[in-house]
Amino acid sequence: MINPALLPAPEAAAAIQAGRLSATELAEVMLGRIAEREPVLRAFTHLDPALVRKQAARVDAAVKAGARLPLAGLFLGVKDVIDTADQPSQYGSPIWGGHRPRSDAACVALARRAGAIIAGKTVTTEFATRFPGPTTNPHNSGHTPGGSSSGSAAGVGAGVLHLAFGTQTAGSIVRPAAYCGAVGFKPSYGSFHRAGMKVMSESLDTIGLMGATIADVVLGMTAMTGFDHHLPKPDRAPKLALVLAPGLAGTPETAGLMECVTEMARHKGATVTLVELGAPFTDAVALHAHVMNMESAEALSWELDHARAQLSPILRERMEWGMSEPRAKLAAGRAAFAAAQAAFNDAIAGFDAVLTPSAPDEAPAGTDYTGDPMFNTLWTLLHVPCVTVPVGKGLKGLPLGAQIVTRRGEDAACLMWGEWLQAAIHGAAHG
Amino acid sequence: MINPALLPAPEAAAAIQAGRLSATELAEVMLGRIAEREPVLRAFTHLDPALVRKQAARVDAAVKAGARLPLAGLFLGVKDVIDTADQPSQYGSPIWGGHRPRSDAACVALARRAGAIIAGKTVTTEFATRFPGPTTNPHNSGHTPGGSSSGSAAGVGAGVLHLAFGTQTAGSIVRPAAYCGAVGFKPSYGSFHRAGMKVMSESLDTIGLMGATIADVVLGMTAMTGFDHHLPKPDRAPKLALVLAPGLAGTPETAGLMECVTEMARHKGATVTLVELGAPFTDAVALHAHVMNMESAEALSWELDHARAQLSPILRERMEWGMSEPRAKLAAGRAAFAAAQAAFNDAIAGFDAVLTPSAPDEAPAGTDYTGDPMFNTLWTLLHVPCVTVPVGKGLKGLPLGAQIVTRRGEDAACLMWGEWLQAAIHGAAHG
Repeated sequence: MINPALLPAPEAAAAIQAGRLSATELAEVMLGRIAEREPVLRAFTHLDPALVRKQAARVDAAVKAGARLPLAGLFLGVKDVIDTADQPSQYGSPIWGGHRPRSDAACVALARRAGAIIAGKTVTTEFATRFPGPTTNPHNSGHTPGGSSSGSAAGVGAGVLHLAFGTQTAGSIVRPAAYCGAVGFKPSYGSFHRAGMKVMSESLDTIGLMGATIADVVLGMTAMTGFDHHLPKPDRAPKLALVLAPGLAGTPETAGLMECVTEMARHKGATVTLVELGAPFTDAVALHAHVMNMESAEALSWELDHARAQLSPILRERMEWGMSEPRAKLAAGRAAFAAAQAAFNDAIAGFDAVLTPSAPDEAPAGTDYTGDPMFNTLWTLLHVPCVTVPVGKGLKGLPLGAQIVTRRGEDAACLMWGEWLQAAIHGAAHG
Repeated sequence: MINPALLPAPEAAAAIQAGRLSATELAEVMLGRIAEREPVLRAFTHLDPALVRKQAARVDAAVKAGARLPLAGLFLGVKDVIDTADQPSQYGSPIWGGHRPRSDAACVALARRAGAIIAGKTVTTEFATRFPGPTTNPHNSGHTPGGSSSGSAAGVGAGVLHLAFGTQTAGSIVRPAAYCGAVGFKPSYGSFHRAGMKVMSESLDTIGLMGATIADVVLGMTAMTGFDHHLPKPDRAPKLALVLAPGLAGTPETAGLMECVTEMARHKGATVTLVELGAPFTDAVALHAHVMNMESAEALSWELDHARAQLSPILRERMEWGMSEPRAKLAAGRAAFAAAQAAFNDAIAGFDAVLTPSAPDEAPAGTDYTGDPMFNTLWTLLHVPCVTVPVGKGLKGLPLGAQIVTRRGEDAACLMWGEWLQAAIHGAAHG
């Protein structure tokens, strides 16, 4: 029999649902993989094999009792800014050390309802901001996995998790997924309810999902949100708007990658047209830091007043900046976001999707710095779906991703064109 | 010396700041008032006089040490869907009985930072939805105080709280405030961060503030949000758009009240023009129940899966309805909200504000039913500021309110025209 840990997630879940494989068997091989990788990977802040086995046994019992569980037995990582009733939830901060919430976050409850196993809590930077955790890149432990959803991206990239929740305020899903060779999907804003998440910026924070492939993410999103994210394979190539950020010149590897991806997409029949996004978009991006940090400082009011010394110096400095900026900047930022959101559909009229970089170059060396969200903040504040797909390796042998973006609500199309792009590039590379 | 409990909130806080009154003295007389009213009023789910005295002593010490505390010593009630680290937070549900969060909600931390005393947790309906708590109307205990912010409205209306936090998803601040003779202010969506609130509908839930007068609310909003909500008294009367809902015919007392209020406002120089809000607004209102209940059902995923039997039958039924409706309705509802939000400024172009009913008639008899939010849902989904001001008493001797609404972000103007309206009516009544 094939090693069940090598089965793609949809096949593994289907095999468990059909009784050809038990969740318990799958859990054992997945736990074995985790045990092998975790000492170097350090993707988890909490991992309890006994609890995993208990969950697997419950899934097996439910399947025997006739339950329909689309994610039966799949290993799901939960970024540790999202609450779990049966595991600590510490938000990447010593202030919340040992915290054990009374309930699961809404998205965790939905995952369990669909049969997923909460494999563990994954490392987040401090409150999903700048200060990093100990996680290393699964492709080279001398490099960062990116952040803030560091453990989720590393766990999926290492193949020790089938799926993982991340959250994005600037670039915290797409960038680490790209750096770890995973598919990272930030859905339309509001696709997952944030009940039970440690929300920092209400205007920006979005829960999303990582997986090894687009198909895995489609399965997960459909099972948990109730929206069908499957679309048939398109019978034509897309019209793509190529959006490059001003900072691209400083990231030569990404600049070269985008040329190469454009070439390959054209080779497969796509039209790729460079589009310059003008004033409403640059204005909104210019105020992203204000909205993010002013809202986050309000979210952390209790921590700032009761445990300021336990915040990292960089977070303390950012929050103090957020509290000292004129309050009118927050209103101006929100208004700029709304104006950009209202202008976006017109700006890409006639295109199926946007093609744009996922992250600057390969993952930086070391684990002190998780990288720059320069290619991500616009799409986060626009509230539109975006997905990074792995498209090859860079000069240092680390993964590179490319990003597809669609209009708000076009989540299924985003995933469909992401899959098209990935196939186009792999086909071209082999052809 | 005057009884300090009779001082208006701004004067009481100023007296404490100036050392002419101590927070401890004020706390004693306020606790005395609470002790007198609470057996019938039943506004509190948690009230701990020793803890109140400790907070008052801390305020006195901080003032002595030179702190600038704009809300020094004021009694603030916190609706029990908002977390407090030092008091239970039970969300109006036995599922959360005895729950004690680790941190304060962001808005509670901001209130403490400004010197307010968290006088107690106030009664909410079950998760701020339909099933009522035990609170009675401060003007006649045979009647409901309205809901879902029942205890906050009753406490302010009875004069045992200077200020109180409420939350609104449909009409849960404005309606109970109107029924209890309080000023109830739902600010622009997002004015308070919801960190630490038991959020039900992410698209709708808004934290707001109640007080005895507009001046009290202006003080509280300015102190806690950092946005200056003071505006000078206007030197002219407003141009008002009178918006009446289709259901008005069924509420004869409110219909009569609106005629009377219109007359008085005109008498004081206002122009009042009947405005019919058309399709984008009626479309959005028609989908309010879908967005509210579908988002709430997702928020309560954990409760539904682990404690369904402890939900009230009416909430269980609503949540099951929310889970069974087609997911496309949720997307359609959010799109309809966005379209109405985008159309609103044009719809009231040329007007200073909207004049509209606060609630249907006087508070219903009994405490089983907190009343209909028919006059509130539109303004909630539009994300615009709205305030109810007391404008007299009805046939049964219970308070009546009238509502002023402005554009998103025009929170200070909303309060200013609300005060103008109240003065116009009281002046007319006396003149």
